[in-house]
Order: sequence, then C-alpha cells, then structure tokens
Amino acid sequence: MAGETTDSTTLQTEAEVEQEVTPWTVQAGKRGIDYNRLIEQFGSQRIDPALLKRIEQVTKQSPHRFLRREIFFSHRDMQLVLDNYEGGKPFYLYTGRGPSSEAMHLGHLIPFIFTKHLQDVFDVPLVIQMTDDEKFLWKDLALDEAYRLAYENAKDIIACGFDVKKTFIFSDLDFMSEPQFYRNVLKVRKCVTFNQVKSIFGLTESDSTGKIAFPAVQAVPSFSNTFPQIFGDRADIFCLIPCAIDQDPYFRMTRDVAPRLGYLKPALVHSTFFPGLQGPKGKMSASDPNSSIFLSDTSEQIKTKIQKHAFSGGRDNLEEHRKHGGDTDLDVSYQYLTFFLDDDAKLAQIKEDYESGRMLTGELKQVLIQVLQELVVQHQERRKSVTDEMVRQFMTPRPLNFDAARK
Amino acid sequence: MAGETTDSTTLQTEAEVEQEVTPWTVQAGKRGIDYNRLIEQFGSQRIDPALLKRIEQVTKQSPHRFLRREIFFSHRDMQLVLDNYEGGKPFYLYTGRGPSSEAMHLGHLIPFIFTKHLQDVFDVPLVIQMTDDEKFLWKDLALDEAYRLAYENAKDIIACGFDVKKTFIFSDLDFMSEPQFYRNVLKVRKCVTFNQVKSIFGLTESDSTGKIAFPAVQAVPSFSNTFPQIFGDRADIFCLIPCAIDQDPYFRMTRDVAPRLGYLKPALVHSTFFPGLQGPKGKMSASDPNSSIFLSDTSEQIKTKIQKHAFSGGRDNLEEHRKHGGDTDLDVSYQYLTFFLDDDAKLAQIKEDYESGRMLTGELKQVLIQVLQELVVQHQERRKSVTDEMVRQFMTPRPLNFDAARK
Repeated sequence: MAGETTDSTTLQTEAEVEQEVTPWTVQAGKRGIDYNRLIEQFGSQRIDPALLKRIEQVTKQSPHRFLRREIFFSHRDMQLVLDNYEGGKPFYLYTGRGPSSEAMHLGHLIPFIFTKHLQDVFDVPLVIQMTDDEKFLWKDLALDEAYRLAYENAKDIIACGFDVKKTFIFSDLDFMSEPQFYRNVLKVRKCVTFNQVKSIFGLTESDSTGKIAFPAVQAVPSFSNTFPQIFGDRADIFCLIPCAIDQDPYFRMTRDVAPRLGYLKPALVHSTFFPGLQGPKGKMSASDPNSSIFLSDTSEQIKTKIQKHAFSGGRDNLEEHRKHGGDTDLDVSYQYLTFFLDDDAKLAQIKEDYESGRMLTGELKQVLIQVLQELVVQHQERRKSVTDEMVRQFMTPRPLNFDAARK
Repeated sequence: MAGETTDSTTLQTEAEVEQEVTPWTVQAGKRGIDYNRLIEQFGSQRIDPALLKRIEQVTKQSPHRFLRREIFFSHRDMQLVLDNYEGGKPFYLYTGRGPSSEAMHLGHLIPFIFTKHLQDVFDVPLVIQMTDDEKFLWKDLALDEAYRLAYENAKDIIACGFDVKKTFIFSDLDFMSEPQFYRNVLKVRKCVTFNQVKSIFGLTESDSTGKIAFPAVQAVPSFSNTFPQIFGDRADIFCLIPCAIDQDPYFRMTRDVAPRLGYLKPALVHSTFFPGLQGPKGKMSASDPNSSIFLSDTSEQIKTKIQKHAFSGGRDNLEEHRKHGGDTDLDVSYQYLTFFLDDDAKLAQIKEDYESGRMLTGELKQVLIQVLQELVVQHQERRKSVTDEMVRQFMTPRPLNFDAARK
C-alpha cells in the first residue's frame, strides 16, 4: 500500500505507514501494529476473559503467560476445541516453520514454546511442517539448501522439548512422497482459483506458479487424513493451529475449502509479532543480525545486542527519567520480559519501578540480559544433545502415541 | 477466439469458425485443421523429405507409415536426436495419456503405435505418464476414479506391445512419491509465472490453482533426472516426445525453462489429430460414443458405426459417383485407412479406384471394417492377456534395460 498516489500530502504520509500483514510482509503502521484492526480485518475473535477462564477450567491450571499477557490474543473456534476435548474427542496440534536461515531467533521460538505447552497440557499429537518448498520458491535459495535448513531448524525445534512419542516433524520435500499429502493438495487446489489466492495473499499475475500453487501445501496438514500413519483414513480429527497472526490467510483459505471437501475446519490461536530489538514495528528479520537475538548467540553477544540495540522507553537523561519514568509500551527490553519472564509479580514490580522512574533503562536491560542468557544457554545445551538419530526419529512418518480412549 | 466482435458480418462469420488448438480444446476452422498454420503459430518445423531420408539412413529401414503419410508431420530438434544417436549418445522416449475414460478409442492409439515403433527401431527406454491428477483437475471426476482409470488405460497401453524391460508407466498420483519428481516440478514452477501459463495455455484468473500448477507436472518427465531409478542423477540424457500437436504448449514451456535449470530441451515429433467418424473437424471425443471407435467395441459395433456414421466423400447417387468419383480428402473411411493400412500400394490403388468412381463408398467402408475389426480383435486379445501383475511390473520404478554402450 505504501507510496500510493493520493490527493493530499497529509494523506500520503498516512498511507506510507499503513499497516500491511501477509505471510511474507509485516509492515507496521505509524503506531506499531494495530491488532484490533487485524482481528476485524481477518474476522477472527479476541481471546476474552471468559475464554481464558474456560481454558483454565478445562486444563485445570493457570493459563500460559502468553495467554495471560495477550501474546496469543486471537482465535478461531477455540471453544469448539475445548468442547471436543471435554466431550472426550481427540484433537491434534499443527504448527510449522519456513526454514530460510541456519539460525533461528527468539521470535521463532514463540509458537513452539506455546505449542509445547499445549501438547503437555492436552496430551495430544502434534505435526510440525517445515516448508522448505516454500522457502525455495520465495527466496534466492537452492532446493538442497532449503532442505538442509529444514533439518538444521528441526534440531532447534526438537530442543524446545517436544515429546518424540507425540510429535511428527516433516519436510515438505520429503513428505510429498506420502500419496495422501499430494491427494489432499490437489483437492484443495481444485477448489481455489487464482483470483482467490490473489485476493487472500495479494499474489499477482507476475508471481510464479510455484507461489500460486503453494498455499494448498500449507493448508492440508489441517486435515487429519493427510497423516495416514498417525490417523489412518480418519478425516474427522479436529486440528488446532498455534501460529503468528500473519499466517492466518493460509487458514482462512483452508477453512473456506474444508467443508467442500467434507473435512473439518481447523481451529486457530494467533500470536502477536515478537518485536525487533530496534522497536515494536513488525516482525524481527533473520537477515539483519542486529535486529534479533539468535538462538546461537553467545552470552556476550546477547549482552552487547541488548545494551547497544534494544530500543529504550526511558527518558533522555537521568533527571527526566527519575521524574517522569520510562514508557513500558515502547521499551523493547520490557516487552521481551513479557514474553520470557514467567513470574507475574516480578514483572508487575518491574513495570511499576520502571514507569515510576525508580528503575533505570540499564537496570531493566540487566534483568533481561540475565533472563535471555539463561534461556539461550539452556536451549543451546538441549540442542547439543539432539542427535541426527533423534532428528531421524522425529521426522519418520509413524504412529503417534495419543490418548486412545479419546478415539 | 470464436465470437470476437469484428466490424463486418463476413469477418465475424470467419471468426466464428477460427481454429483453436490447446491441450483441452481442438476447434477446427471452416476447412478443417490448418496444420501449416499450426506449425507457423507454434514455431515448430515441418518434417520434410530431407529429414525423412535422414531418418531412413539412420534407422536403416523405411520410415513408418505415419511419417510417410505426414501423420507425424512436425517436429522440434529431431535432427539433434539423430545426431546424438549416431554419435553413440543415449536418448529416451516420453509420451503420456490423460485417463479420463474407461475405454480408449482409436485416436488414442496413434502416439502409442508410433512410440512403440520408435522404441523398437532405436532400442531406447520409454516413460509413459498417466496424468490422473490432470484429469481430476479438469473433469468432474473423483480422484480415486481418475486413479483407477490410469490403471485401466495402462492395460490398453501395455497391449500395444511395449517391452517391459524398456518401459516405465507411471500414474502422477503414485509417482509424486519420488522426491526428484516434486523437486523438478518446484524448479519449473519457480521459473514460470501466471502470466506465462495464461499466454501459453489460455488459462484465466478464474481457473483453479490446480490447473495453473499442473503444466510443470507434464513438463518434468522431459528431464532425465526425474527418473533416478532409470538414469541415476544424470540430467544430460536427451528426451524425444511423440505426441499429438495439441500437447505442444506444454513442451514449448518446458523448452523455454530447461536451459535456466541446466537441463536439455526435449525434442518433439507431432502428429495430426485422428478425425472423428462424422468428419475431419478436430479430435475425436471419448464422450460421444458415435464419434469414435473404441478399443472395447465388438466387431459388430465397428461395422455398424462405420456403415452408419463414417462421413463419406462419395457422391449423392451411383450415377454421379461413377462419373465424378469420391473425395478421399473428405472421406473418413479413406482417412482411417491412411492411419491403419500399412500397404502403400494397396492404399494407392484404393485411392485411385475411389477417386475414379470405380470403387463405391460401401466397398471402401468394407475394406476399413475388415482392417479395424482385425486390429481391434487383436488388441482385445493382447489386452486380455495383460495381468495385474504385468501392470504392476510396468508401473514399478526400476532400472530399465537400455544400451549401456551408449551411456
């Protein structure tokens, strides 16, 4: 939308910062991402206090901090998932990753941390799609390299602690060898016209037929019979997809198509974007090393990046800061703590101290540095223990161990 | 192109019968298909006497009647195939079939008869693609039904006499399980935009993304490394594609893309269309039973169809016919004989007798009835002897037995 011709200079300036969210572009508006507008635009539902309470009742535990803090803030059919679960019917989780770089960053962890939590709480099977085909089509990336990155990234994902007995990770390049995958892809493609992918994804006539064909590939893991090794030929097992909200277009399309194929619509739970170090304007970029903290960064690099690059909501000088306090809405270090500091009381104390001016930016950053150093070191240790044999296990199509009583 | 607005009524009438040839529509103009115009429009080469002579020299035998009679009339890079062959380099044949109906008709046999001849003469491997995915996408056909028809039609193809040691037949729905197939499909799709399939195939914005994605699937069997079981990872084995000229758009696209992928352009040899019983206006249709003779027809049905429905080039009454003779250009029975009566001298005699009026339409039809009854009965006998085990053999990816000295 940027740069469109308008009649007035003022309007043009507004237009230049208009927000745009697609699976490939996240462009924040002047005041950051307006998530209420996204909910309205995409037609999803806000996760409200009533739903949170319901989740707490069903799972018999306090909702995850991502839910408490509205990081997972939007959903589709989450009530249905809970109804099904309470009714003794099985469901499964589906999430994914586009392997375009060797090193994953903190933002990439968010859906996996939350998915692992859901897997633990509900004791359900999980499928994780590595869209190496997508990254080959969209990036200047050789097919073999995209494929290699799928396996590299799988190690980081496994390091999040998923249960191998309940988790199947697959590369699209591998799993297209499953006949049921291609069959469901064809069924979806037969239902979706070019005009539809144009309007849903903003694809154009000059885009490759690869891009135009891809959305069906991300759609079909939403249908349980895509995984005969796990679900046999059953097409009636409900799917819940945790993902960042920029992925929603794929699943709007999927939900539109599902009833025409006799399949269930997948349910979704959407997260906000993890802000870049330089400020809360859209997603982090794996291609700008200073915009992100990578899971491969050393403790020293983490410290330096936060000290030098984390955008501060503090005041210009000590006197001003003590007097007026810092702005936690703008402060990236504080925002990062909302993602990774689980202790509500401690976080509230930090907020109060920072906003009142008692806590300085440097002190706040020190808290974050410690939290992230610990998190990343632990991740790296777990990743080191992920062997090729474990990767092979996770990535072999096979029966998963899910509550048979619920079948 | 039919029905376009023009300034004059005369022009409009012309426009209404303008010829249109795509893989899905063959619309003849007023005077039938203008093959010279197709050669010009598609940019292929006519098979001229010099090329025929060259083929005769290289193969050390008289060219097949389809070549002698300009039924295979057009080509791309046929000289290169011959140069390669003479230089001791291997090549392979690739042809295919869209399995949209249980019964194949005579017209469907043409590429297979010619391909079998080429396989015998050059002693080369052959791959035959059954585009069950295409038929699912284009027709009101369930996926399972398209898949079943692929196997049914494979029996008719095997009954043409192909050598199992040199022939691999595959259903797209099966063979997408070969990783190299999907990989090459992705590579082609990355190179081909929607605008290109729009201009090459006439696909539109309201067409399904399945249709838009399909051309890459028909393209990639042109590349030898799509078949690792046959050619290993070699991408440098030349491919020759015998097909009806309506399939050329797929391979224009393929030849355009090949060099960008480091692959060889496939060579082609194109046939005219086999005329329908009612007259030489385009291809036969499997959906109109009286327009075609099916390979499953009884001898009685063949007789009746030819006697009742074969368009005659004879005169209105006996007296006129004896005086002016019949028109072999228009007479479908005579045209059919050019396809199936191998004896040049006998065919020439029939032409002379019919055009001079010595031979009557009924007599001409009687010759054709005998030829086709014999051909179809023999086909049916061979088809009966095709077991499921043979089909399985032909359709299993495996090494083929081709002249190792040429590797």
